[in-house]
Amino acid sequence: MSKILTGDRPTGKLHLGHYVGSLRNRVLLQDQYQQTILIADSQALTDNIQNPEKIKNNIIEVAKDYLACGIDPSKTTICLQSKLSAIYELTILYLNLVTVSRLERNPTIRDEIKSRNFGRDIPAGFLIYPVAQAADITAFNATLVPVGEDQLPLIEQANEIVKKLNNISNKPILLEIEALLSNVPRLPSIDGKGKMSKSAGNTITFSSTSDEIKKSVNMMYTDPEHLKVSDPGKIEGNVVFSYLDAFDPDIDEVSNLKEIYKKGGLGDSVLKKRLVNILEETISPIRHKRLLLDRQESYVIEIIKHGTNKADEETKNNLYKIKKAFGFFEF
Amino acid sequence: MSKILTGDRPTGKLHLGHYVGSLRNRVLLQDQYQQTILIADSQALTDNIQNPEKIKNNIIEVAKDYLACGIDPSKTTICLQSKLSAIYELTILYLNLVTVSRLERNPTIRDEIKSRNFGRDIPAGFLIYPVAQAADITAFNATLVPVGEDQLPLIEQANEIVKKLNNISNKPILLEIEALLSNVPRLPSIDGKGKMSKSAGNTITFSSTSDEIKKSVNMMYTDPEHLKVSDPGKIEGNVVFSYLDAFDPDIDEVSNLKEIYKKGGLGDSVLKKRLVNILEETISPIRHKRLLLDRQESYVIEIIKHGTNKADEETKNNLYKIKKAFGFFEF
Repeated sequence: MSKILTGDRPTGKLHLGHYVGSLRNRVLLQDQYQQTILIADSQALTDNIQNPEKIKNNIIEVAKDYLACGIDPSKTTICLQSKLSAIYELTILYLNLVTVSRLERNPTIRDEIKSRNFGRDIPAGFLIYPVAQAADITAFNATLVPVGEDQLPLIEQANEIVKKLNNISNKPILLEIEALLSNVPRLPSIDGKGKMSKSAGNTITFSSTSDEIKKSVNMMYTDPEHLKVSDPGKIEGNVVFSYLDAFDPDIDEVSNLKEIYKKGGLGDSVLKKRLVNILEETISPIRHKRLLLDRQESYVIEIIKHGTNKADEETKNNLYKIKKAFGFFEF
Repeated sequence: MSKILTGDRPTGKLHLGHYVGSLRNRVLLQDQYQQTILIADSQALTDNIQNPEKIKNNIIEVAKDYLACGIDPSKTTICLQSKLSAIYELTILYLNLVTVSRLERNPTIRDEIKSRNFGRDIPAGFLIYPVAQAADITAFNATLVPVGEDQLPLIEQANEIVKKLNNISNKPILLEIEALLSNVPRLPSIDGKGKMSKSAGNTITFSSTSDEIKKSVNMMYTDPEHLKVSDPGKIEGNVVFSYLDAFDPDIDEVSNLKEIYKKGGLGDSVLKKRLVNILEETISPIRHKRLLLDRQESYVIEIIKHGTNKADEETKNNLYKIKKAFGFFEF
């Protein structure tokens, strides 16, 4: 059974963007693959080093989100990155296989440097995070990584490292990594101005109450020129339709509604009411399970601890094999 | 008792340059401090990644050199860097506290980039090695590091990291590091053209036979204008005198010889014969002990293993304290 590695940075509670983009899919993947989910607290520190408390506190929140959404710890290993020393060791080894200029040419890194205004003052830990990701993946011997289109350069860089290490040692020590490309379009933010983001605060989380869901849906950007019910409306850029596309199980009916909306004759309020109901149906069982987990924090910690111990053993075994095959002194 | 950390990259057998520059001193330091010597195989890989076999094979050679020179494993911990996962973990943590441009401004790094012709194609592992050194030192809670003048920027950089980490957590988690400046002049290479270097092959090692010592001393650069015994000779740049300064126990006699040489009346061959005898006296007991150790490799490995296990426990304890105090999630 192929090994699949996914993960999240614990910088805040997860939200519907994560649900559509990955969580929902992971619940299916855990039946098809040997799945590990990494709570990437070390990586989160690469641009949150001034605020370790935030990362620490969100680890358990993210784990609750996983469990509430249906991640089954008997099928999926949930583990904490900062407790897996093998990942650190591999990162340092792989850094010798990558030049600084190659890292700076990595499109994902280049974009992030721009969007975070780092310039030349980029923390070294941030520059090297593609290498750390290669370490994450290979530490588990994972061959499948679910990613979006924008993360393909990270997989490419990881495979460069895999090939270089195998080349030097003239042995197939590391396995090549395959991207499991997700074709789900990104869920837009409520205001339609970008992607949902924990940091921008324009999200619907799994803790959102019915009232909060209603409020968020009512604020959603639709078509500003669709003033009267009888006016023809635009689907493109219409956040409500993006959400219906993502959550409404009745695809035919959504197609139907789109046709009517385009011609004119369908009010935003009708659509929004439909969406509120559908989101409530999606979120309420998750919210309920999450509330239960809030009262069982020690159980959640046990899950993380158990998964981390398992992952620690697994990654340490792999590390030992890699180091030995590569030519480290072992005793 | 203060903790002192020193070490060597296992890229070849050690030589008289190491003896004068550090080994001789470490034999004294082990009675005054809690001394740890790190065989820095991970660091050696930062510019030897294509040749892991070379590093692996030299680990035991370097350990033999230590023992043969008088390092006492009951006083000094001899340990192997690549087996100490706490160092890797701290390196990754500290990388978040240092910018790429700061690393590029580090004079030691700048010089090495130049001398190794790396340019922009510097391996990332090499660029970050000052951070790895800060991790080496702080992993042991060491506060004293014997260095040459040229390595002071590394100590400065390490202390910047110490201060930043303490600042963020508002607690004195890490101890500041003090350089134990060595005032020993560097032993020149036999041809007088630079420093002795394992890679240039212009060294006298502890395995050198009497014949090899003689040959090396006879090749030593003196004063090319000192043709006849009666000619006045130059002391400056005269490799034979540099070695006499470093090894001859009779300082007054060396002063005396210098005066005569300057005036004229002292032949190179007389001086060289004196040096051969002194080097033979220094090296022969070390060579003898080294030959015994060649036949006891499993004993040498046991010493490294024992020291590494001790160091592993010590550094892991420190790491745990550092991570906990800094705000990592611990269970």
